[in-house]
Amino acid sequence: MILINGTAADSIPANDRGLAYGDGVFRTLRAVYGKPLHWTQHYARLAHDCARLALPCPDEAVLRNEVCRAGAAQLNAAIKVIVTRGSGPRGYGPPESPIPLRVVLSSPYQPQAAEEGIQAHLCKLRLSHQAALAGVKHLNRLENVLARAEWQAPEIREGLLLDHDGNAIGGTMSNLFIVEDGALLTPDLSRCGVAGVTRDRVMAIAQMLGLACHVKNCTLQRLCDASEVFFVNSLIGLWPLRRLEQRLWHAGECSRQIQVALASGDAECT
Amino acid sequence: MILINGTAADSIPANDRGLAYGDGVFRTLRAVYGKPLHWTQHYARLAHDCARLALPCPDEAVLRNEVCRAGAAQLNAAIKVIVTRGSGPRGYGPPESPIPLRVVLSSPYQPQAAEEGIQAHLCKLRLSHQAALAGVKHLNRLENVLARAEWQAPEIREGLLLDHDGNAIGGTMSNLFIVEDGALLTPDLSRCGVAGVTRDRVMAIAQMLGLACHVKNCTLQRLCDASEVFFVNSLIGLWPLRRLEQRLWHAGECSRQIQVALASGDAECT
Repeated sequence: MILINGTAADSIPANDRGLAYGDGVFRTLRAVYGKPLHWTQHYARLAHDCARLALPCPDEAVLRNEVCRAGAAQLNAAIKVIVTRGSGPRGYGPPESPIPLRVVLSSPYQPQAAEEGIQAHLCKLRLSHQAALAGVKHLNRLENVLARAEWQAPEIREGLLLDHDGNAIGGTMSNLFIVEDGALLTPDLSRCGVAGVTRDRVMAIAQMLGLACHVKNCTLQRLCDASEVFFVNSLIGLWPLRRLEQRLWHAGECSRQIQVALASGDAECT
Repeated sequence: MILINGTAADSIPANDRGLAYGDGVFRTLRAVYGKPLHWTQHYARLAHDCARLALPCPDEAVLRNEVCRAGAAQLNAAIKVIVTRGSGPRGYGPPESPIPLRVVLSSPYQPQAAEEGIQAHLCKLRLSHQAALAGVKHLNRLENVLARAEWQAPEIREGLLLDHDGNAIGGTMSNLFIVEDGALLTPDLSRCGVAGVTRDRVMAIAQMLGLACHVKNCTLQRLCDASEVFFVNSLIGLWPLRRLEQRLWHAGECSRQIQVALASGDAECT
């Protein structure tokens, strides 16, 4: 199901700035029988990202209502919320009073457990540094598309993205954590990458569990030396990394604890 | 007028990858009574950019026909041709056999002479380096949007963009040339920037006029030391730079020669 500005439809104006320039932001989240999980956090991130682009964020209640309606028909739905700067005349200059476009798409979603951990591809594409856009889940996602196009093998579930300096930043569609000496580390996203809601949740869970969680640079070597590595996002939950190139890991205790805490947080929402 | 896959329409599918990821390319060109100027070069660049993204390029004759139809009603039309990877299921992975979407938009266009030269803003936003996308006129244009949003003053007609290393790369919507010791220099676009058709044309004109034209890095200092600086694109032709911050230039002989050659090349097309 697709809602465009609240109305069931399947198309958007051809002169929308989301198409022309990728001038907008989005979130992907899970809904259970129309109830969006962790909605407050998703909306907060959406509003934060809109502010980063000086884009008026749609009203919370309006958007929540649309998300609920879009997901209502399914037990498990993947909901994508897109907010663009709307239609505009020719040229990059943003309209003085933009009328944002809201697109809410839902599709059936089958949670994919990965207890044993997953195999990841080391992407050749290196993420560029752009502090003005770093962390924001904006619609300029060609780097992710090119990185995801690097592998076809179905047994590879995610790709690890490094930046130009060789720091691990995240998966193509997920955030990254490593465990070293019993503490968590997640990459600093001040120059590239996307800050997801599940990353925030893992940091909060770590605090509850009494685990330290550092936000800093993480070289590939450091990642390979880590005792555990895992990817997170709102749909997959937590995927432990079992294999990257020749390096193998066993699913570790820390990943398992956080995986359980994430799942129980999801269950509390439903 | 808007043609979507050849049919007059004003909307595109909401699940198009052009909206979701900016997964596509575009060109902007001028048409006179429906005749696109320098079409062969524009199509060649479009096909080249499609190949860079592993995106099937629509047939030349099909696209030319649509461009002609879209521009037919106007003396001077600005035509924008967008090609996206089309609709697809959820996820960054490109579909195995994408069906590209063609969007051709035309709007009335008033050529804006700028014989006296223009005033430019020195953009604070610095372009990021991404060799995988550099030179390509793709739909991920948030850097241009943010840069263009830096000024409102109508007397400022263009913004000068530097990269992270402090090299001048181009205008927000145009390519850049400087003149030093009677030779042209245009920035190297192998790490960022967009390679426009008019840039190619200026290089060809320089050769005809017996002027050297170098493609290399150009620091801001070097630009400020240049005897002439100008911006080019398919709609504006050539705009001499008259003022950047406190630096003033007079419209120079070299700019004037090339401006005339560009205009006469346009006239030959019509």
